Amino acid sequence: MKMNIRRPDDMHVHLRDGTMLSHVARYTASQFARAVAMPNTTPPILTGEQAISYGDLIRRRAPGLEPIAVIKLVRSSTPDVIREAARLGVAAAKFYPEGVTTNSEDGCRSLFDVEPALEAMEEHGMILCLHGETPGVFCMDRERSFLHRELLPIARRYPRLKIVLEHITTEDSVGFVQGLANVAATVTVHHLLLTLDDVIGGSLRPHNFCKPIAKRPADREALRQVVISGDPKFFLGTDSAPHDVFLKECSSGCAGVFTAPCAMQVLAQVFEDLNSLDRLEAFSSEFGARFYGLPLNEGRLELVREPFRVPAQCGSVVPFLAGQDLRWSVA
Amino acid sequence: MKMNIRRPDDMHVHLRDGTMLSHVARYTASQFARAVAMPNTTPPILTGEQAISYGDLIRRRAPGLEPIAVIKLVRSSTPDVIREAARLGVAAAKFYPEGVTTNSEDGCRSLFDVEPALEAMEEHGMILCLHGETPGVFCMDRERSFLHRELLPIARRYPRLKIVLEHITTEDSVGFVQGLANVAATVTVHHLLLTLDDVIGGSLRPHNFCKPIAKRPADREALRQVVISGDPKFFLGTDSAPHDVFLKECSSGCAGVFTAPCAMQVLAQVFEDLNSLDRLEAFSSEFGARFYGLPLNEGRLELVREPFRVPAQCGSVVPFLAGQDLRWSVA
Repeated sequence: MKMNIRRPDDMHVHLRDGTMLSHVARYTASQFARAVAMPNTTPPILTGEQAISYGDLIRRRAPGLEPIAVIKLVRSSTPDVIREAARLGVAAAKFYPEGVTTNSEDGCRSLFDVEPALEAMEEHGMILCLHGETPGVFCMDRERSFLHRELLPIARRYPRLKIVLEHITTEDSVGFVQGLANVAATVTVHHLLLTLDDVIGGSLRPHNFCKPIAKRPADREALRQVVISGDPKFFLGTDSAPHDVFLKECSSGCAGVFTAPCAMQVLAQVFEDLNSLDRLEAFSSEFGARFYGLPLNEGRLELVREPFRVPAQCGSVVPFLAGQDLRWSVA
Repeated sequence: MKMNIRRPDDMHVHLRDGTMLSHVARYTASQFARAVAMPNTTPPILTGEQAISYGDLIRRRAPGLEPIAVIKLVRSSTPDVIREAARLGVAAAKFYPEGVTTNSEDGCRSLFDVEPALEAMEEHGMILCLHGETPGVFCMDRERSFLHRELLPIARRYPRLKIVLEHITTEDSVGFVQGLANVAATVTVHHLLLTLDDVIGGSLRPHNFCKPIAKRPADREALRQVVISGDPKFFLGTDSAPHDVFLKECSSGCAGVFTAPCAMQVLAQVFEDLNSLDRLEAFSSEFGARFYGLPLNEGRLELVREPFRVPAQCGSVVPFLAGQDLRWSVA
């Protein structure tokens, strides 16, 4: 069996910088036409100019992959910074609450700290991408807390601001996104497979450890149901996030799951298990582009129902489902 | 400031076997007079004879530490096995549901699978020690599930069977133990300090990873309140569980926190923080012995309010709070 779909976009991915970028971008390029490349690099991408340079770098390192530019929203993100970024074609700005994930130490505590920037973004049609967790709240409640304290009031106060709640992990988030006209959500590959049990329920599995942490079986089920529902507000953003193995298997391990080498193969398997292969293309290749106001890709991706073994290691990075056999391959 | 208390007992500790036993037993011996030494060794301690041999081994490796003998309750634990173990002075039998923790692959699915053994234990006054988690249930709900499905019916069916629910982690468990006349509980040192946030809330912390997993702040608070309440049904069992560092910091890490090198120092700090230093001795040195029907220790332990730095590593094992400074020392 084969499936030929419009080439997908990854609406949330960490391509990093330096040698890691050179190493991992090819995996994303092999499956996706475009990538919303996250700006929490070292140093971070804070301005339109930096975003342009980073985009050029990505194009050189991963020919064929078109970056969608994003800047990081920090205290210094003035309306002028936003205006200039919009003029240079930056599509979105990403908000990381302080300390909730990798390289987020320079984040703000709250969206209310960057309201002038939000106003400018609304005015210039720039999308707000959110890591939706409240710092300091108990880990299993952080995302729910953010919905009530930040997302709801901000989405209502800026009704023309387009917002993407990234990598949602809970049933609550699905409901909130459905209920707010200007809010969409990305869903990762790994959150369609994992629950907290896959991190701490048996042995401790650092390569399944990510932020936001995978939640309960009922939460995973809500994500699975919404991605096959055909609701255009929910689209693929893998949040593929590579870390060197020694930064994962250590006494203080980094958060992030590296799904780039197997993203579409795993998705095909999940959608097949849910008897919804016909919904895969819209979720992976259409809804994201539409929300971002981008043309759909012309290229195609062929998925073949032939076994694919995920590499045990990709250089210094252990991928998601390392060494496991999947039912679908990318041709 | 000094505090001179009756020498404490560790009513739940993993001393292991082979070179690990030789290495770790001294830490327990330096603080505790007696130790309920868990039988999930390799191979396991299944009979009275094996328990006697294991006890002799512990005495040779850790002079001054008196082991309290326990056998492991498995499918082959017939009433004859129980009777013979009781005759040889074995105090307790430990039930591990299949697959819930280290070396529990040979466990039973349910207490109802070993009812003839339970009857014999009740008859011979042998204590039932429980790892109270239901296999296959979502990790955050496993302990609660066990209370309803196993502990409650078994405690009622065998009202003269003395039961210890080990290493409790939830507010629910505190309430259940208080409500059942024949049930007591051990509380570990680390569950008085940790919540799930200390495992997965920031970086991934394998040295805080244990079974049952630390739960919510409200659960930790319930444990803290009950250990200072003076309720004799709650006593110290550290569940100190050493693993080589390479089995913790790896792709599939073992569960267990090694608290033996700092158990009483940490406890003194916790009880002091709760303005309850006067409750430490009963919790650590009296309630456990009384529930087991053992005489109280004659020896003393002196705790001094002088800084103690927990070793960064104890040989191949990383201890709880490695490298951190505590306020209390053992003289």
